[in-house]
Amino acid sequence: MVHLENLIDLQMTAKKDRSLSTIGEFGLIRLLTEKVKVKNLSTIKGIGDDAAVIKPAGNLCTVVTTDLLTEGIHFDLVYTPLKHLGYKAVVVNLSDVYAMNAIPKQILVSIAVSSRFTTDMIEEIYDGIYAACKNYQVDLVGGDTSGSMTGLTISVTAIGEAMREDIVYRDGAKPNDLVCVSGNIGAAYMGLQLLVREKCIFDRNNSVQPDLTGYDYILGRQLKPEARKDIIGELASRKIKPTAMIDISDGLSSEILHICKESGTGCKIFMEKIPVADETRQMASELELEPLSVSLSGGEDYELLFTVPLSDYEKVAVMTDTHIIGHIVPESEGRYLALSDGSLTPITALGWNSFGTNKAGS
Amino acid sequence: MVHLENLIDLQMTAKKDRSLSTIGEFGLIRLLTEKVKVKNLSTIKGIGDDAAVIKPAGNLCTVVTTDLLTEGIHFDLVYTPLKHLGYKAVVVNLSDVYAMNAIPKQILVSIAVSSRFTTDMIEEIYDGIYAACKNYQVDLVGGDTSGSMTGLTISVTAIGEAMREDIVYRDGAKPNDLVCVSGNIGAAYMGLQLLVREKCIFDRNNSVQPDLTGYDYILGRQLKPEARKDIIGELASRKIKPTAMIDISDGLSSEILHICKESGTGCKIFMEKIPVADETRQMASELELEPLSVSLSGGEDYELLFTVPLSDYEKVAVMTDTHIIGHIVPESEGRYLALSDGSLTPITALGWNSFGTNKAGS
Repeated sequence: MVHLENLIDLQMTAKKDRSLSTIGEFGLIRLLTEKVKVKNLSTIKGIGDDAAVIKPAGNLCTVVTTDLLTEGIHFDLVYTPLKHLGYKAVVVNLSDVYAMNAIPKQILVSIAVSSRFTTDMIEEIYDGIYAACKNYQVDLVGGDTSGSMTGLTISVTAIGEAMREDIVYRDGAKPNDLVCVSGNIGAAYMGLQLLVREKCIFDRNNSVQPDLTGYDYILGRQLKPEARKDIIGELASRKIKPTAMIDISDGLSSEILHICKESGTGCKIFMEKIPVADETRQMASELELEPLSVSLSGGEDYELLFTVPLSDYEKVAVMTDTHIIGHIVPESEGRYLALSDGSLTPITALGWNSFGTNKAGS
Repeated sequence: MVHLENLIDLQMTAKKDRSLSTIGEFGLIRLLTEKVKVKNLSTIKGIGDDAAVIKPAGNLCTVVTTDLLTEGIHFDLVYTPLKHLGYKAVVVNLSDVYAMNAIPKQILVSIAVSSRFTTDMIEEIYDGIYAACKNYQVDLVGGDTSGSMTGLTISVTAIGEAMREDIVYRDGAKPNDLVCVSGNIGAAYMGLQLLVREKCIFDRNNSVQPDLTGYDYILGRQLKPEARKDIIGELASRKIKPTAMIDISDGLSSEILHICKESGTGCKIFMEKIPVADETRQMASELELEPLSVSLSGGEDYELLFTVPLSDYEKVAVMTDTHIIGHIVPESEGRYLALSDGSLTPITALGWNSFGTNKAGS
């Protein structure tokens, strides 16, 4: 059971205030990085010089991706524990590396904080960062810490490696390929909607303790998502190389359109095949949201959407937590969603626009 | 001649307001990246997938560095033209790559902007980013664009390559090594002080047009610094491998202490050998600042500080724009500055603390 109050306590109760202006930038970097131990052979030099040095073994390629999370746009500290935020900031980047069919090995983390942040609060964020580094076996090899006039900003760059021939782009889908998705869709978005609702109640009356009982799963999906390292491992062990792959950060419909557009194809997705968790359906119904739009347009799932040749059907059919939701068709046949009554509706991407009005989640 | 007013005009006059919330994140990315052409063979895949793919030729290592610039802390948009800001955000990262004796090849740029920014303003920033990419022959291969509740944040990650045996760290300096510095020191800091002074005058009375005549050099050093690509090239062509190297972003004294600390050595630096430009001296005198502290503690020079074995004396002595300012001594002999009267004073690092009170430059 999670209570908003506990979350708020967690981040507001600094064990001991050690002023940032006293510790200074170098002191803070020392404090945050003294625990770092390099895990990967390809990390030649980590923190402590002008740049990190990386040398993937043999003929491996390097993949690089970066994401910027800003307070008030991608997260709300009222309901985001700092440790979870640090964890999530790393995971969303690792997810992009996995979506290339590559293995993340290093990260660089830059963070800008305003004067309302204490050293303890920054350490909380880094505890989350280190937890992610441990779980995913990546090395923190560099970054930057800085002041900020206002909120908190976290920028993470993730570096991974893969054989060139194993890398999967978005543009390789072919007609008749099967469209697959890992896990389930829409849960993180429903978790966010619940948090936003409870925050409104809490704002109106602080004596009403928000009750989030029974929704641990969708809250976890929003606050502490995981990247699908396991799926990449299983694809490798089953010798499946997807023809196209992308991670679902902006919503299923947005991502399938990316694959179709880049591959020059159409697609047919079967609504009833899209995996949606019970809690997600329940919350959608409670909030009177259309389950269709939740599963298609809710972002931040960090699941993998990929296509495989039809000849791999038997192999993907037995994969853990992987669902075949449709197939690729020639571009001329369009990009459609088949509803349960057999009718077709064009797929349009609402996606997530951080410049728009639908702010507050990542 | 540069006038503050012109700078302000430059960034406030949007040619045509194209609302960010209308264009959206994908639209903006498309707009900003449609001009990008990949220049380097090691860039296998640039913008347009979950991650960029990089494959340095043969046995080359990859070096990676990142820096975060936040409005109000690292720059003040009142006197920083957006194009220069974009240029500088790239250059400060390239400087870190050169400081490893490596050649920058790729960058990733993340940017967060508040609603007061127009598409044109963001394009101005990217014009500067592209100008830097062109001058330094690097590819923009990825990044992120995002909204921000308040100011502008730019995060750049730079990736370079070098043979493992050519990479120069901070920890290789040995007693008797010569300490060398490129260019001159303190100019960027004096440029900043001038801009801050003129901003104060302008704030008090908008009808007084700030006159920055005669200070083009120090203003240029602050607003549009360059990284010392040429020095790295000359070191290579003269077959000099420094024993230690660092770029001067936080101030000469701070950086020489980094080298000494990492190398476990002391040093003796001769005050009168530290190169200081005439305009820097003139402005220091005008502002009644001590030239000593300006040249030792003023940051943002983006010059290279390096050490070479004494046996390389003849080679460095003829290098363009390179100055021998002292030598490395055993740690037990301390880290001292020799003044012109022969007296010694310990080197202490004020450096630059973005959490402290001395904000406003980068």
